[in-house]
Amino acid sequence: MKVKLAKSFGFCFGVKRAIKIAEQNQGGATLGALIHNQKEIDRLREDYGVRLAKSIEEIAPNDRVIVRTHGIPKNELASLKSQDISVTDATCPYVTKPQKIVEQMSEEGYQVVIFGDITHPEVKSVMSYAKEPAWVVGSIQELEEYKIPKKVALVSQTTKQREKFFQIAQYLMHHSYEARIFNTICNATFQNQDSAKELAQEVDIMIVVGGLTSSNTKQLFEICKRFCPDSYLIEDEKGLELEWFADKEICGITAGASTPDWIIQKVKSSIEAI
Amino acid sequence: MKVKLAKSFGFCFGVKRAIKIAEQNQGGATLGALIHNQKEIDRLREDYGVRLAKSIEEIAPNDRVIVRTHGIPKNELASLKSQDISVTDATCPYVTKPQKIVEQMSEEGYQVVIFGDITHPEVKSVMSYAKEPAWVVGSIQELEEYKIPKKVALVSQTTKQREKFFQIAQYLMHHSYEARIFNTICNATFQNQDSAKELAQEVDIMIVVGGLTSSNTKQLFEICKRFCPDSYLIEDEKGLELEWFADKEICGITAGASTPDWIIQKVKSSIEAI
Repeated sequence: MKVKLAKSFGFCFGVKRAIKIAEQNQGGATLGALIHNQKEIDRLREDYGVRLAKSIEEIAPNDRVIVRTHGIPKNELASLKSQDISVTDATCPYVTKPQKIVEQMSEEGYQVVIFGDITHPEVKSVMSYAKEPAWVVGSIQELEEYKIPKKVALVSQTTKQREKFFQIAQYLMHHSYEARIFNTICNATFQNQDSAKELAQEVDIMIVVGGLTSSNTKQLFEICKRFCPDSYLIEDEKGLELEWFADKEICGITAGASTPDWIIQKVKSSIEAI
Repeated sequence: MKVKLAKSFGFCFGVKRAIKIAEQNQGGATLGALIHNQKEIDRLREDYGVRLAKSIEEIAPNDRVIVRTHGIPKNELASLKSQDISVTDATCPYVTKPQKIVEQMSEEGYQVVIFGDITHPEVKSVMSYAKEPAWVVGSIQELEEYKIPKKVALVSQTTKQREKFFQIAQYLMHHSYEARIFNTICNATFQNQDSAKELAQEVDIMIVVGGLTSSNTKQLFEICKRFCPDSYLIEDEKGLELEWFADKEICGITAGASTPDWIIQKVKSSIEAI
């Protein structure tokens, strides 16, 4: 089977950086899943002895803590530091930025609005930097429940959809005197999406590699299905099924931002061997 | 003829304030036309000896200068003050606000964008507060000629249309990292417009009173014509023509933000006498 990779796929800058930091901190403990890929977390534990602490209670005084790519709440970071625990920050710089913006805007008296999912660790970390409670909304409908004050500042979860972000910004502009719009959406996710869309239109079958619970992987899968009905989502090469490839000539591959290259390479080789 | 006045019409807060200041400064000189209404300027000259200096060269050292509602450029204000000339500021507070915003944003490194007409005295005054040249645009097409930087701040001429302002804001949001949107459009103009629209639908004939060169009066006239084909624009009661009122039962009246009440009252009495 002939295989074609998307122009842009897999690990983003923040994920690569976090993994490098974890590898450099053998025997450390990540607070929360470093990235949203169980197989990579397993590899870091097996090859580098980096264990996963699910909450701050699982951190021991002699632990060397690695802060996950999505960041952690401000009070947890302060708590770790006050205990003299060694902390290495693997928060993606694209997440550190909205954290800082939220902190500053809140200090300056702006009502902070975050476009995102309140259950996502990134949003939990970003919203924790607001002095006064930030509003986390996923749609204009949710925003309509609030009375918009004169001064508002908007940031976005890094992996959200641009068009929805602009709709929310538009609503805030219409209802405030000053709307401060920070486009904190990360480019990497969108480059992967654009490349997937392009490739899906050129091939007979499309394979999306990524964590089944990864939100950005799911988005890639949805995009691929729209442009190539024969699209399949797998975690690794074991998920491949021969019958998918009958009568197909060319197969496209893309992968989520937290899918390690070694998994993608195994998938690629397996398909080429068909 | 039965007459009905618009719910909101004529003098806005800033114009009323400026006229009061001029009346309290008998024998003063306004730098530029205090408001856009020649008849009111004539009245202030005749009744209060307030003369019009068309430019800073026409100001004498012993003049008491009244700054017009639209404001004047920053360097002219500084020049007057450096000459120890007495200056009374009748700039509308809704214009002082964008002046201050433009000064601060420019200081903080934002590219300032002004939605407005570069030939209008208000825009000339507001843009003069920018450290680096502000971009003055009337449409998205004009904005497309610029390369939008990371940080931009948008203000509007106080009398511009809201929807066009939001379109420009939207464009800036799409092309910058941080867009700071200040909605400096004045409510008074829109209240007059909304009321004119409402009344024009209820009456047989609509009379718009205002300076023939006044931009906000022209806008009122256009709105009225849209909802009442028998709409007429006049400067004062002398502009009325009897034939307009044949077969009409009820006449609506509105007036621009710089039209004095004494002119409107004369128009009203003249129509009631028909």
